[in-house]
Amino acid sequence: MQITTMPPPLDRQVQLMRKARAKTSFDPRQLTYVIFGGKDEVQRREGILARVERTIGEGGRKLPRNYGEMNRTDLYHHGLHVGRAMQEDEIIHRHGLFSHMDVNYALLNASPFGLHDGMFIPTLKLQGDPEQRAHWLPLAESGAIIGTYCQTELGHGTFLRRLETTAHFDLETDEFIIHSPTPSSTKYWPGGLGYSCSHAIVMARLVIREKDYGIHAFIVQLRSLDDWKPLSGIELGDIGLTMGLNGTDNGYAVFDHARVPRRNMMMGYARVARDGTYTPPSKEHTKHSYGTMVQSRALISNAVAFQLAQATTIAIRYSTVREQGNISFDTANSTDMPIISFRSQHYRLLSLLARAYAILFASKSCLLLYDSLGSEQKGGNSPILPYLHITTAALKAYGSQVAADGAEDARKCCGGHGYSALSGLPDIVANITSIPTLEGENYVMYQQTARYLVKQAQLIRTGRSDKTDKNVGYLVTGYEGLSTRRDVLCPYSQDELLNCNSLLRVFRHRAARSIFECAAALELAQKNGHTTEKAWNQHMMQLIMAARYHAECFVLDAFIQHVSEIEDQKVQRVMEHACRLYALTTIESPFSIGSSGFFEDGYISLGQLNDIRQHVNTTLEVLLPEAIGLSDAWNFSDVSLRSALGRRDGNVYETLLDWTRQLPINKRSRAKNGVDQVGFERYIRPMMKIRSNL
Amino acid sequence: MQITTMPPPLDRQVQLMRKARAKTSFDPRQLTYVIFGGKDEVQRREGILARVERTIGEGGRKLPRNYGEMNRTDLYHHGLHVGRAMQEDEIIHRHGLFSHMDVNYALLNASPFGLHDGMFIPTLKLQGDPEQRAHWLPLAESGAIIGTYCQTELGHGTFLRRLETTAHFDLETDEFIIHSPTPSSTKYWPGGLGYSCSHAIVMARLVIREKDYGIHAFIVQLRSLDDWKPLSGIELGDIGLTMGLNGTDNGYAVFDHARVPRRNMMMGYARVARDGTYTPPSKEHTKHSYGTMVQSRALISNAVAFQLAQATTIAIRYSTVREQGNISFDTANSTDMPIISFRSQHYRLLSLLARAYAILFASKSCLLLYDSLGSEQKGGNSPILPYLHITTAALKAYGSQVAADGAEDARKCCGGHGYSALSGLPDIVANITSIPTLEGENYVMYQQTARYLVKQAQLIRTGRSDKTDKNVGYLVTGYEGLSTRRDVLCPYSQDELLNCNSLLRVFRHRAARSIFECAAALELAQKNGHTTEKAWNQHMMQLIMAARYHAECFVLDAFIQHVSEIEDQKVQRVMEHACRLYALTTIESPFSIGSSGFFEDGYISLGQLNDIRQHVNTTLEVLLPEAIGLSDAWNFSDVSLRSALGRRDGNVYETLLDWTRQLPINKRSRAKNGVDQVGFERYIRPMMKIRSNL
Repeated sequence: MQITTMPPPLDRQVQLMRKARAKTSFDPRQLTYVIFGGKDEVQRREGILARVERTIGEGGRKLPRNYGEMNRTDLYHHGLHVGRAMQEDEIIHRHGLFSHMDVNYALLNASPFGLHDGMFIPTLKLQGDPEQRAHWLPLAESGAIIGTYCQTELGHGTFLRRLETTAHFDLETDEFIIHSPTPSSTKYWPGGLGYSCSHAIVMARLVIREKDYGIHAFIVQLRSLDDWKPLSGIELGDIGLTMGLNGTDNGYAVFDHARVPRRNMMMGYARVARDGTYTPPSKEHTKHSYGTMVQSRALISNAVAFQLAQATTIAIRYSTVREQGNISFDTANSTDMPIISFRSQHYRLLSLLARAYAILFASKSCLLLYDSLGSEQKGGNSPILPYLHITTAALKAYGSQVAADGAEDARKCCGGHGYSALSGLPDIVANITSIPTLEGENYVMYQQTARYLVKQAQLIRTGRSDKTDKNVGYLVTGYEGLSTRRDVLCPYSQDELLNCNSLLRVFRHRAARSIFECAAALELAQKNGHTTEKAWNQHMMQLIMAARYHAECFVLDAFIQHVSEIEDQKVQRVMEHACRLYALTTIESPFSIGSSGFFEDGYISLGQLNDIRQHVNTTLEVLLPEAIGLSDAWNFSDVSLRSALGRRDGNVYETLLDWTRQLPINKRSRAKNGVDQVGFERYIRPMMKIRSNL
Repeated sequence: MQITTMPPPLDRQVQLMRKARAKTSFDPRQLTYVIFGGKDEVQRREGILARVERTIGEGGRKLPRNYGEMNRTDLYHHGLHVGRAMQEDEIIHRHGLFSHMDVNYALLNASPFGLHDGMFIPTLKLQGDPEQRAHWLPLAESGAIIGTYCQTELGHGTFLRRLETTAHFDLETDEFIIHSPTPSSTKYWPGGLGYSCSHAIVMARLVIREKDYGIHAFIVQLRSLDDWKPLSGIELGDIGLTMGLNGTDNGYAVFDHARVPRRNMMMGYARVARDGTYTPPSKEHTKHSYGTMVQSRALISNAVAFQLAQATTIAIRYSTVREQGNISFDTANSTDMPIISFRSQHYRLLSLLARAYAILFASKSCLLLYDSLGSEQKGGNSPILPYLHITTAALKAYGSQVAADGAEDARKCCGGHGYSALSGLPDIVANITSIPTLEGENYVMYQQTARYLVKQAQLIRTGRSDKTDKNVGYLVTGYEGLSTRRDVLCPYSQDELLNCNSLLRVFRHRAARSIFECAAALELAQKNGHTTEKAWNQHMMQLIMAARYHAECFVLDAFIQHVSEIEDQKVQRVMEHACRLYALTTIESPFSIGSSGFFEDGYISLGQLNDIRQHVNTTLEVLLPEAIGLSDAWNFSDVSLRSALGRRDGNVYETLLDWTRQLPINKRSRAKNGVDQVGFERYIRPMMKIRSNL
């Protein structure tokens, strides 16, 4: 069987893409600088990425390797190949570019070596004492040892206190005995733990003379540096295919009385002396972890913004070159239009892109606030840290939920082709959907935020507004408005509802009302004799929503702030519309969640809703010709998108067919006259004969 | 490296499961009979499934094969293995059990032979003339030929009229020449087209003497029955990995002037004579496809109900045996509870289960209505068919959207483990998420429904209520209520809001209001000089929501109806609560969509919302001890769920560890002292030396 040659392509798709790109009213490059923080940074990134992409060796007309004939082991080896290219570049150039996202904008967890820079080295820095740092850091930073971070167990997730792994101190030998006492204590999930790491930070229960001192961190050498064999008493393995992120070997470890020297316990805070004397950590230590969590959750929110932007970029590009007639008004002479012109597509894609920007700017605000703290303040002495902590937690939950749902919706916007691996979307969706349950499960995150907000509300309700956190000042204002009944109806005219600052006040009304309702409900439940826990459980869903509303206030505020600081006038004008679209479609969101919060107390009237719908329509029309520019600005290379649908040049159909023909199963079968021999002989031929053989 | 032996399990999880199961107040077997339509049918199914599962050879403690070391080709061969087992059982026993779902409850599209019974044979029956049927059907039914159905092209989805593939009639040879003129005309996506089928129904543009007669169906033999080679002028191949459903070879075909006899055009309706004379189909033919679409969409809705129930069953079982302390109220002595007791988990899982039942019953109502039609009425002469058509379209969209989102939410309810293939959830989620864009894209479906509803509304608004479809009588009542302002505030007391019939009226208010608002908005836009298309485009999002609201009315109505017919009192009582939960959580749905429609016109007051929230809480409490029984009732075998988390006996952790150790990558590495040699030597070792080599 030969490949059939077809007439040369008309390049209609490429022309459509050029035409659409030419309509952009601003210079997307200027927006790229805004996204990455300046021209120099953009150029630095481009240099590093080009070098690493070259090392990896993908691109051109080549089918991306991971779409080919890969089983579990091949996917892992491909991950090692990509991970090695990044890690070596980092060891040589020390640029830190892959500190939270890889070359494909996946979270660092995607690489078998991702936790080395992401968790292993930071833990050594934070929790080691000076001598330990001096010993371990040079080894780790030169890549002479490769580490991961082992916390979760088969039966225990984020709830640190319940971990079962033990580290008994053996006074005789001056060693700790690391042990997994039950199946559910098996360390399970750490990235790279299966076959890629020589060392691990292992979180385990410290026991000295039968006394349990709780969870502490231990450096455990897992494998021989000579032949990579697991050391005595350590069973290691891969946990198999996961929904996405299969380039890494999420692994498991069973410890059978494995021994490590006493000095392998991280002793920057708590200490165990030679004679078994235990010195507990000071209070700052506990607080210290606040700062680390703030940073890591802000970085996660940053990463999901890019991932949502990737999915949306692919869908926008495809929708720009895919033409279709209007099925609902199918008349023989109806003309075909790029499908992005159909309102449902137009609405979904532009509002998803606006959300990507919204989450990006919110994560930047968190990171800026965090960076502005002195190192001592990061340690827990800053008055802003509690607020920043709970806001970043809510942002992590909100951002990852919106991004995961949004990427999947962008995928659906590509119809059937979005279901093909070659679209690049299944990979992105599968990667991103890990994030809502990872590094702080979203529902737990929202509840932490809600606890803080309710406490603030209780202070305000009991006349102690002066004691509240100034960063949630909107609660004080909100309480006054609600209790004097000044703020029960949205006061804005049609024109005012175009103003993002008015819309921010609408957002704040919803958040404040909802938080005070929760606070009142909890108080009532307790008055009725329920325990705090029971009362909380009863109102948990509303508390979670209140935390989400708080997150949305923060996000819109950050969006407004960042747009106001954009210097390029043309870029600023378009981004003002994007910000407005974010705000408006959060209120009038036929396919989103939580919008009933704006209406359930009658705050927004049906007339105002109609004004908002009209504003959505006009804003969408302004943004339609900017869609390509707004997605180009994220500066994703074709190699990083790995998408036949999302090609920058729009040459979708040729690429899809080209890649399809390159699939190993097809190349192999072509060599066999177009037959998959094994499948035919083993399954199909016998089945076709079964009736005649009966 | 040896596998470490750990102490015998305490079987705590198994005990928790037994305890939970013992709390069930009803006999789940009785509910199983309701789900499948009687005891005999349940036993018949169980017999067939047990036989086929045995042939496939999975189960026991064995790691399910598709979680192991499978590349694209292996996944396909595994699909052939499973597909052959089902198809042979069907050829021998002709039970039709796999007519729309396979042994794992995936849509028939999951099997390489799924479209043979699902589309190929039905098309022969419907569109062949008597002679063609007599020739082809015996071949197809005995499995002597295997067929698929080729409609979609690389550049063309559901929009039949735009297909590019041509079938030129060659008067000289009395043949059709099947041809793909451009890359975008490549047939792309049909299941089994790659390597599994000998024949296909190909939809192509009929051209006689340069005149284009539009799209017709042709039987094209693709492969030699002797050696399976593609016939001359036909290029066939697989389209590669897709998000899920990789057991089939979705394929592509490029035709290069392939020839088929004239009599291979399906001539049940249109005909081409030897001299090239064309006889067009009668009007009934066009209508006929209505009936087929109704049935196939109702069957899809039925399948998604089972898939959502699978995901929810896994998550409920896991949440019953997974214990955790309350993180938000972490005190040293807080006791661990099964995580299903935490309200967010409890709320999500039970309302997902209620949705699975809701979609199931709605699909049953559609199928019953359809089955009740005489065969002539199915051909388009039934007054109920237009209503049934648009309602089934909306149900397909609603059901697949709710089920896809719901299965993913159930997956997230399992935290990190839900991300592992071994949980079974990634497979279910990936399969189900194909359905919103398949066999009628959801947004297109909703729009078809909206068109019909708006037309009915326009009749009513212009005083022609007598001309409206009696099946949407709620629109007539709704219009009266709205226009006399009798129905602008929800009239129900706290107690009345517990009644599903009252809640149905609340649903209908929302649907009717929304449809009349759309009708008015369209009329206004047209008065202002917009074309129908432009007006439609402007209000598309609201129209889509209105169609969804209509679907929800139908679903709740069907739920109420089916529950009222349950004979077993205990089952009925529990199902009444499930129905209520469905209705209440559609209104008060913090994490669902569309609920703002109940509030945006001020219909439901904040006081009533609080009543509803309280009802949700009490209903959830009633249903908590029934959760295991309500999921057991679906009668999923452990083999069909392929889930370490969803085991019926609750033995989660041992199974997870057991399956993990059986992974091929681990078995192979254990034989090599616990090292993945290729990975270590090719990637890790060189990387660890790079610094010292610089």
